[in-house]
Amino acid sequence: MTAKSVASLYFPNEPTEPTVVASHAKSDAEKAQIGKVFDNRGIYFVADYDKSQGNYIADVDGNVYLDVYAQIASIPLGYNNPALIETAKSDKMVRAIVDRPATGNFPGADINEIVGEILKVAPKGQDKVWSGLSGADANELAFKAAFFWYQAQKRGYQTQFTQEELTSVMQNEAPGSPDLAILSFERGFHGRLFASGSTTCSKPIHKLDMPTFKWPKAQFPSYKYPLDKYAEENKKEDERCLKIVEDIITTNKIPVAAVLVEPIQSEGGDNHASAEFFQGLRDITLKHGSLLIMDEVQTGVGATGVMWAHERFNLQPPPDLVTFSKKFQSAGYFFHDPEIIPNFAYRQFNTWCGDPARMILAGAIGEQIVKHDLVTRTAEVGDYLYAKLEKLAEKYPSYMRDLRGKNRGTFIAWSLENADARNKFLSDMKTVGVNIGGCADDSVRLRPALIFEEKHADILVAAIDKLLSTY
Amino acid sequence: MTAKSVASLYFPNEPTEPTVVASHAKSDAEKAQIGKVFDNRGIYFVADYDKSQGNYIADVDGNVYLDVYAQIASIPLGYNNPALIETAKSDKMVRAIVDRPATGNFPGADINEIVGEILKVAPKGQDKVWSGLSGADANELAFKAAFFWYQAQKRGYQTQFTQEELTSVMQNEAPGSPDLAILSFERGFHGRLFASGSTTCSKPIHKLDMPTFKWPKAQFPSYKYPLDKYAEENKKEDERCLKIVEDIITTNKIPVAAVLVEPIQSEGGDNHASAEFFQGLRDITLKHGSLLIMDEVQTGVGATGVMWAHERFNLQPPPDLVTFSKKFQSAGYFFHDPEIIPNFAYRQFNTWCGDPARMILAGAIGEQIVKHDLVTRTAEVGDYLYAKLEKLAEKYPSYMRDLRGKNRGTFIAWSLENADARNKFLSDMKTVGVNIGGCADDSVRLRPALIFEEKHADILVAAIDKLLSTY
Repeated sequence: MTAKSVASLYFPNEPTEPTVVASHAKSDAEKAQIGKVFDNRGIYFVADYDKSQGNYIADVDGNVYLDVYAQIASIPLGYNNPALIETAKSDKMVRAIVDRPATGNFPGADINEIVGEILKVAPKGQDKVWSGLSGADANELAFKAAFFWYQAQKRGYQTQFTQEELTSVMQNEAPGSPDLAILSFERGFHGRLFASGSTTCSKPIHKLDMPTFKWPKAQFPSYKYPLDKYAEENKKEDERCLKIVEDIITTNKIPVAAVLVEPIQSEGGDNHASAEFFQGLRDITLKHGSLLIMDEVQTGVGATGVMWAHERFNLQPPPDLVTFSKKFQSAGYFFHDPEIIPNFAYRQFNTWCGDPARMILAGAIGEQIVKHDLVTRTAEVGDYLYAKLEKLAEKYPSYMRDLRGKNRGTFIAWSLENADARNKFLSDMKTVGVNIGGCADDSVRLRPALIFEEKHADILVAAIDKLLSTY
Repeated sequence: MTAKSVASLYFPNEPTEPTVVASHAKSDAEKAQIGKVFDNRGIYFVADYDKSQGNYIADVDGNVYLDVYAQIASIPLGYNNPALIETAKSDKMVRAIVDRPATGNFPGADINEIVGEILKVAPKGQDKVWSGLSGADANELAFKAAFFWYQAQKRGYQTQFTQEELTSVMQNEAPGSPDLAILSFERGFHGRLFASGSTTCSKPIHKLDMPTFKWPKAQFPSYKYPLDKYAEENKKEDERCLKIVEDIITTNKIPVAAVLVEPIQSEGGDNHASAEFFQGLRDITLKHGSLLIMDEVQTGVGATGVMWAHERFNLQPPPDLVTFSKKFQSAGYFFHDPEIIPNFAYRQFNTWCGDPARMILAGAIGEQIVKHDLVTRTAEVGDYLYAKLEKLAEKYPSYMRDLRGKNRGTFIAWSLENADARNKFLSDMKTVGVNIGGCADDSVRLRPALIFEEKHADILVAAIDKLLSTY
C-alpha cells in the first residue's frame, strides 16, 4: 500500500529537494536594514514567503530549505497551504480583519460557529474555550482562571467580595490581591511575560533582569535511555518527582492554586515522562484542591501523533485547563468545569478577548487535519522517521545521543555532546539544505508541519547522514 | 465652507439615522447559546458586522446604533471600511495570515516595508518599534525593555551576566531576577495580565484574586472644572502630585525602573493633566535615571485631535517608550534610544514577535488617516461637538457634570451623579439609537471612530437631549 501524499494534493509543485545557493548576502543586507528599526539579533535569515511552499521555506537569496523547524513549531499545514489561502480570502475572514470586535462585549453573529469549529478538535472531555493571543497570554489567562477558581472554592462561588478585599486590591495587598502560586517544573517553558516567565525555568536568557513571582518549581523526571532497559529506574524517578510535587503543595508558604506542566517539556529539551507520572499529578492536584493546567502550546495540534499530547495519558478526570497556541495560530485555553468561568462578569476580560481572524484560521486548520486524517499520517511518518534515525544514531552515536520521541509522531529530538557541538550542527545543516532547530542547550528538535511525509523524512535523513559523514 | 465628508466618501450608503426596533430577542437567544462554550457575562448585544457600516453598528435583531463606543475605542475608520477591506484582500495580507512567521527568527522580505508604514505615523522623535499583540502585552514588553535597560545602566550595556545572576534567575531570586518596580498612578489602567495588572489601579474587578507585584502608585492630578476658573488650584495640584512621584522614586524600597502614565487616564475616568505635569514627570525621570513610558493604548491614533495625545505636551526629550494598540489594531511600543534594544539576542523575544497581518492593517490605517487628514478633521468635529455638549450640560447640569475634553478632538467625557445614574443613562441611550460606553464608575466616555463628523455629532446630541428630556 502506498500511503496517501496529502503534501502532493496540496502542493503539486512542492520542490522535490532543497536548493542551496550558499550565499546569504541579500539576507544579511536586509537583516542589517531591519536592525535600524527593529531588534534583529535573533534573525537566522530573511524569508521569501511568496516562494515558500509546503515543507520548503525559501530565503531572499534563493536558498530553499526543507523546514523541520516550521516557525518554531508553528506551521501546521505547510507554507501557502491552498485550503488556508481560501479561508484567508473568505468574506468572514475579511470581516474579522477589518471589523475586529471587542468579543466579550459585542461578539459577531458567527462567534458560535467560529468557537464551534475550534471545539470540534478540542481535547477529550473539554467543551468550552476562552481565547487569547499567544502561548504566554493563554497560560496567563489560565492562571487567572485558576486563581479565581481557587479563591471561589474558599469563599463560595456566588459569594460577593468583602469591603476589605475591594479596598486592599487597589493597594496590591491581601486579601484582595492574595499571595497564590502556580507550581511548575524545572526545565519547563511557559512563556516570557512576567507571570508566565515566573513559571518558565528552561534558560536564564528568557528572564534575566525580570522581576518574578516567588513561585515554586518541582523536578520533572529525568529518564535513562533506552526506556525499556531502564524501566525500573525510571519508575523510581517518577515516584521521586511526584513526592516533591506533593511536598511542595502541602508545605509551600504560598498556596498552590494550580500545577502547570507540559505533556513533553519542549523548549527545555524534549523531556518525556510516563502516563503514570501525569496520572500521579492529576491525583495529587485532586487530593489537595489545586487545578491541573496542561500546557499544550508546543505539543498540541497533532505533531505527537495524537491531536493533544496529553490524551495519551488517559487522565481521569481530564486536566482542568488545556492551553494552546502555535500550530493552531490562535491562542487560549480549553476547559470543562463551568466554575472555571468566573462568578462575575468582567473578571476574565480585556478589550479584544482573542482575535476572531486567528480563531477562524484555527477552525480551518482543525477541519483540514480531520479531513485528511493528518494526525494518523503524522504518527505513521513519525514511526518511519524514528526507525531511520535510530539507525543513524547507531552510526553516529556521539552526535545523536538519547534519541527521544518513539511513537510520538514527528515530535523527535536527540542530544549532542554540548552546546557548541549542537549549535555547529544546526548551522551546518543549512549547507545540506535543511532548516532545523534546537531545544535545551545541547539538543536538536524536529518540528515539521503535519504534511511532512516519508519522502521528506528520506531527504532529512540523507542530509543528516551527509553532514555527519564529514564530521 | 462645507467641510469634507470622508464618511460619505467611504460609505455612500451609510445610514442617515439609527434604527431602533426595540427588540433584543435574537441577541438574547444567541447570547445564551454563547454562554455554553464561552464566557457571555459581558455581552451587550450580538452584532451583525455584515450589516454594520461606517459609524453605525447593527445587531442581529435589526437595531442599528450610532456607535460612539466603537469596540472600546478600537475602530479607527468605521465598520467595513472599503480601504481596509482592500488591504484585507491583498496578497500580502493573505500571506501574513497563512504563513505567519516567527518574526524574530525568520521575518519575511516585506518586514521593513510593514514596519516602515507604521513608523510613518510614529510619535515625533520615535524611530524604532517593537511589536506585540495587545495593549497589556505592549505594556509588559515595555516593562521588560525598561528593566533590561535599567540593569544595563548599572552593569554596562555590553557587560556579560555573572555566574551568580545566571544561577539565581533560575530560582526566581536576585540578583538574576531583581526586585524592580514600575511606578504607575492611582486610577490608571494598563491591562489585566499580572505585571500590567500590578500597574492598573482603576477598578477592583480588574484584578481581584490576582497576585500582584508590590509596585508603588502615585496620585494623578484631580483638577477642578472649569479649568480656566481654577488655574491656580490646579497648578498646586500638579506640584503636589509631582512631589509624590519624586518622593516615591527616591525612597521606595524597590528601585523604580520606569514611570508609566497615560496622557489622559481613560478607563479610569478621562482624567486630564497639564503639559507642565507631564514635563515634570519627564524631568524627574531624567534626574533619577528612570525611563518614562507613555501608555497611548487608548489615547493614540488620532481621537484626541493629534495623532498621539502626548505630542501636545512637547516633552523634551520625548518619552522613552510609547505603547500602542486598540485603534491601531496592532500592538507594541515605539522608542528611539538604541539601548532600549537589549544588549543580547533572545531577551526581548517570543515565538511570533507580533502579528504581521495586524501590522499591515496598522500601516493601512495610518495611511488612510494621513491621506484624508482625519486627525485635523477629528479636532474640528471634536470642537463642534464639545460646544454643543457644553450647551446641553447647561440644560441638564446634574446629568452632565465636569464635561472634559475641550480641544481634545472627540475624546470627550462627563460624569453623572453616581454609578447607578450613569449605568441607567448608558443603557437608556440604546432606546434613542446610540451605543455609548462608560469610564470610571460614574462617567460617560465618547470614543467614536475618526470618521465621526458634524452630522453624526448632531444625531448624538439630539439623542442625548431627547433622552435627558424624559428624565
